[in-house]
Amino acid sequence: MRALFFDVFGTLVDWRTGVAREAEAILKPRGFALDWIAFADAWRDQYQPAMEEVRAGRIPFCKLDVLHRRNLETILPKFGVAGLPEDTLARLNLAWHELDAWQDVGPGFARLRTKFMLCPCSNGNIAMMADIGRRNDLRWHAVLGSEIAHNFKPAPSVYLASVEALNLQPGEVMMVAAHSGDLAAAAKQGLRTGHVGRPGEGGPGTGETAPRVPVDVAAKNFEEFAGKLGT
Amino acid sequence: MRALFFDVFGTLVDWRTGVAREAEAILKPRGFALDWIAFADAWRDQYQPAMEEVRAGRIPFCKLDVLHRRNLETILPKFGVAGLPEDTLARLNLAWHELDAWQDVGPGFARLRTKFMLCPCSNGNIAMMADIGRRNDLRWHAVLGSEIAHNFKPAPSVYLASVEALNLQPGEVMMVAAHSGDLAAAAKQGLRTGHVGRPGEGGPGTGETAPRVPVDVAAKNFEEFAGKLGT
Repeated sequence: MRALFFDVFGTLVDWRTGVAREAEAILKPRGFALDWIAFADAWRDQYQPAMEEVRAGRIPFCKLDVLHRRNLETILPKFGVAGLPEDTLARLNLAWHELDAWQDVGPGFARLRTKFMLCPCSNGNIAMMADIGRRNDLRWHAVLGSEIAHNFKPAPSVYLASVEALNLQPGEVMMVAAHSGDLAAAAKQGLRTGHVGRPGEGGPGTGETAPRVPVDVAAKNFEEFAGKLGT
Repeated sequence: MRALFFDVFGTLVDWRTGVAREAEAILKPRGFALDWIAFADAWRDQYQPAMEEVRAGRIPFCKLDVLHRRNLETILPKFGVAGLPEDTLARLNLAWHELDAWQDVGPGFARLRTKFMLCPCSNGNIAMMADIGRRNDLRWHAVLGSEIAHNFKPAPSVYLASVEALNLQPGEVMMVAAHSGDLAAAAKQGLRTGHVGRPGEGGPGTGETAPRVPVDVAAKNFEEFAGKLGT
């Protein structure tokens, strides 16, 4: 095994409290008092349906930042927010670039990078992965995923284009995620799979503690995962 | 200014002695005694003509690893090398992934990364940039360049697709290279430009000591360059 591909939102970073924090930092000074966590959840709820438009071929591929912006404009009125100037909307949309890694990711990555190539294989776009990587010192060896494949996971091409970009065979790569659907799709394309539990991803008890599909490695966090991979 | 884009071969890494060293390590045990430096130079001489086939639209885009392999098969007979098995050819082609950075790059990057996003904008492909970055601990924030643009520098699309991938405007990015032609092409697309001298790139006295075109910043190495950029 040569490379590890990571799902990012939920698996490596806590999108929920991060988006809530950024929204509060930007909108509270403008006089808005929202349920910030509910706002983050509502924004995230638009994520799969928006990508499905692309996967189903109803709209051409565009980077996730563009979908997030459309989704933001869909949900703002539902929270009673209107009349934001363009620069505020743009800044709010960057909330997804300003997310913090779960605590176990840094120590886990320090061990994993001694042995493996580490790359995001996310539905996020390149700028988003670059910003998240820089903020959390993740030191990607390359940014792979949706933007190089021009489609969104779980479409097979996202895994395969990412494997091909590293000149590898699917069996030389492990997809690592806290989401069984992502891993099942990767396994179908011949990648190995690693599951890391994130029971609190979308709030207490909402995420996966353990995989719901057969995987090669399962761990409760990235330190345990690094150990199971011999690092 | 938000990001620095780097030319890699010649500017960051010493392709000449690296390719010569790898070729010797692979071919000498098989009984070949070549002028290893001349071999590296001959391989490099095929580089621009091969990319020009793509730029001119005579062949479809393919990653630089593929062009290198074709070029390798062109030059091997000229050095009296024949009958190499496939795995040896494949290993030899990876010589371009196993290059060492010039000594000033590490200390320069340590300072530059405190302030800027650092990305290769090279004609090399993603796997090559990932391997070179990992070998030299360059910590790319993202890998940009030819493979995401599906063309080779100095085609305008390579600079513009790379800028767009970071959600930036051309004026927020500086292209950094030891080659005036690269910088002139980047400047034409609105990028800022930085020149780092590499007088010995292709052997003593062959490279550029100073820029031959107007640039925003010129330095004799990356430590001086980091200082001029306020890091």
